[in-house]
Order: sequence, then C-alpha cells, then structure tokens
Amino acid sequence: MTDIITVTGVVGTDPKHHVTNGGLAITTFRLASTRRVFDREKATWEDGETNWYTVSAFRQLATNASLSIRKGERLIIRGRLRLRAWETGERSGTAVEIEADSIGHDLAWCVSTYAKVRPTRP
Amino acid sequence: MTDIITVTGVVGTDPKHHVTNGGLAITTFRLASTRRVFDREKATWEDGETNWYTVSAFRQLATNASLSIRKGERLIIRGRLRLRAWETGERSGTAVEIEADSIGHDLAWCVSTYAKVRPTRP
Amino acid sequence: MTDIITVTGVVGTDPKHHVTNGGLAITTFRLASTRRVFDREKATWEDGETNWYTVSAFRQLATNASLSIRKGERLIIRGRLRLRAWETGERSGTAVEIEADSIGHDLAWCVSTYAKVRPTRP
Amino acid sequence: MTDIITVTGVVGTDPKHHVTNGGLAITTFRLASTRRVFDREKATWEDGETNWYTVSAFRQLATNASLSIRKGERLIIRGRLRLRAWETGERSGTAVEIEADSIGHDLAWCVSTYAKVRPTRP
Repeated sequence: MTDIITVTGVVGTDPKHHVTNGGLAITTFRLASTRRVFDREKATWEDGETNWYTVSAFRQLATNASLSIRKGERLIIRGRLRLRAWETGERSGTAVEIEADSIGHDLAWCVSTYAKVRPTRP
Repeated sequence: MTDIITVTGVVGTDPKHHVTNGGLAITTFRLASTRRVFDREKATWEDGETNWYTVSAFRQLATNASLSIRKGERLIIRGRLRLRAWETGERSGTAVEIEADSIGHDLAWCVSTYAKVRPTRP
Repeated sequence: MTDIITVTGVVGTDPKHHVTNGGLAITTFRLASTRRVFDREKATWEDGETNWYTVSAFRQLATNASLSIRKGERLIIRGRLRLRAWETGERSGTAVEIEADSIGHDLAWCVSTYAKVRPTRP
Repeated sequence: MTDIITVTGVVGTDPKHHVTNGGLAITTFRLASTRRVFDREKATWEDGETNWYTVSAFRQLATNASLSIRKGERLIIRGRLRLRAWETGERSGTAVEIEADSIGHDLAWCVSTYAKVRPTRP
C-alpha cells in the first residue's frame, strides 16, 4: 500500500496518447497541484507552492483519459508515485511520475457528463 | 491530515440536493466501494467485500455534483471520513460519512466531458 | 487501492491478542482519532469530533503490536477500511474496522526505541 | 488535502538535527520505500522499484525523531509531498521531500517502547 497518493490540480499539457507494438495503450500529461495556504493576517486562503507531476495511464483508463482530458481542466487523480533517477550526458535528475489507477474531472470546479461511449466534443 | 480517504465506487442512489435557510448548498448520495481480490487458484481478480458510504458535498461542489451525477455512475472521491454514533429509540448504530472535497467521474470506466456551465442532459 | 486510510490517534483499550487454531496471530484494539479544528476567532487549534475505529492486525504485526502497544499511547496506523453490517436480535449497526498493514508509535507525541527482540517493559 | 502521502520504508541515513537561530528544531533523513510486487510465475512477493525521499520534521516531532531514529530502522511516515526544482551551476534536478506530520517505527518489522521522556540508548 506504500507510496499511493491522491492529488488534485490543473492539466498543464494536452495528453499524449500512443499504443505500443504490443498493443498497450498509454496516455501521459503534466499536472500542476498547487497547495492552498491560509494566511492568518489576511484571514484568506492563498495559493502556495506548486508540485508538477507526470501522470501516466494505461489500458482503458489511457484511452478514456485521452478522449476526455484537455489542457487547463481540473482533475482528481489517484495512483502510485514513482521516482526515477535519470541521467543523459551531463545532466541528471529525478522524474516524478504518478501511475494513475483512477482519474476524474474535479466537480469542485466544473460539471461533467458521463458516457460509456465517446462524447461529441466541439 | 488524519482520517482522509480516497475511494472509488458506484453511485447507489440519485443525489439529493437542497439548500439550507442560510444558503448552504448540500448534496448527498450513497456510494458502494467494492474491493477487488486476486484469486490465486483461478489467477483472476474477483469482487470482494463492499463498503457503503454516505457522501456529502457542500457549496459549489454540491451544486456541480447534483448537476453531474446519476445513480449507477462510477466515481472517484476524496474527503474526510466521519463516524457518528446515532440512536433513535431502541435502535442505534454508526453512520459512516465522507465529507468530500473532490469528486470526479472515474475515467477507468467512462469518458466524460468537462464544462464550466450546466451541461444539457437528456 | 480503494478504501486505504491513514489515521493518527489514541489507543482506547489494551490490545487483545489471540492465536487461532490454524496458528494465525490476531491483535485488536480500539483507536480514537480526534480531528483538530482551527478556531478563527480564538486563532487557536481546538479538538473537534472523534472517530472510533476497531483496529485489527495479523501475523507478525499482531505479535509485535501486542508486545509494544498499551492503552493511552499515540499511534499512526495505515490499513484498509472495512465496514460491516451486523445484527444481533433486535440491535443492528455498522462495525468500522481498519485492517492494519503498518502501525507505529507516533513520534509527534513520544520517543520510542526500536528493537528486533522483545523489549523489557516494566 | 492534496499531495498528502503515507509511505513505509527503511531509514537510509542517520538523522541530522539542528535548531535555527529563530529556535525552530528541524530533523532530516533519507528514506527508501521499496514496492513489493507479486510474481505470478513464482507465486511469491518480490522487491520492486525503490523510491527515495528526503524526510523533514519540525518542532517536537523533529526532536523526538532525532532521539528515536537510527539508520536501518523501518518507519511509517505521513506528510505532505513537496517537489522543488533546483539548479546549481550546470546541474539541475527535482528535490523530493516529505514534510512529515507523523512518524513511527513500523511494528510490522520490530517491537518498540513508548516513552514520554528520552529513552536510554546504548
């Protein structure tokens, strides 16, 4: 059960969808999750720091996410956090990825319609 | 941060929506979350036990949830778990409630369209 | 991944430990998790509502929990939430249980010593 | 509630403890959380990938963690995930930090004793 996380945030890039030679559907996009901080002096909630994640979805979730999600929309996502060290020549870093097992449009910010088939999008 | 939970499941009742005299919008519905269990002999995933929750949403999330959610749809929900002892005459029990801070249609099971305004639903 | 929860709270009963005929070690106890609420007028944190859970542990975790935990101590617990309807004659209700996969003494409230063998407790 | 995570894992470095000029106690250490993966062919659980985190604790939790935790011990930790981009000359990367609000020795792997005062450690 370790390393499971739920985040809410804004989609930062249109989803990329592809299917591997083996037939596995994969969708990836970037998500920005911004912490809300209560400012005691002003007695208001303010935007705090932002965490950026790469979100990956597989199989049916990948297909549905690709059909449903656009840049700028607000989501709720649950999945497993994966931290991977990478190095390419003289640069190195840590890739921060959420392997999603569930994704939804966040109804705190929008209305959404549910369909078993592909919706007509303008 | 204690008692925060994320669940996925099926809406068991059409949402009830009302607005208090003070102007607070509230939406409630029942959600069934069924555990998936791996059967080693059959080497397949099977349905396990089901947890039933009463989900409550407030303010804008309540309004949007009421406009968007119907019985039978699959959701992802994050919120605070509240357990409340109740007693009415000779019966007593524990009410299990999630005060949602985020709700979305679960894209593992559907496609959804995102809109800032009320969608046209048949 | 659904229905996984992390709670912090106070142990309300000394743990009960037993071993089934089949050799499975089981430990159970009650835990009270009290929400902290920020009172804006007083500008202080106050105790809010309390959730009561029955916590169950199995196998090695059960044995270690039984040796380590006493009523009144503060814990952090992660596990799967299980809600079970029960009925005995004229009474019925919902049992709220956490099947723990990890338990620790909460260092926000105490110091603790770690040992691979049974500690000497007065 | 966003970006809250619970992890279990092994302490990779002895905790560093210091107190700022302003009197704030801070403790930091590294934690390795290794995913367990079920190998269907062998029908056994195997170690999968490892996530490395920098864990930070503040105030009383920092003091108690510093007194209680040693490299190699197993912990359960809950806190807020913080991802921070950094750059020093020609190198850049992402720092992955958990700001802990609760830490405990994981009783799935050890026994522990709870004390309100500093324990005697050899």
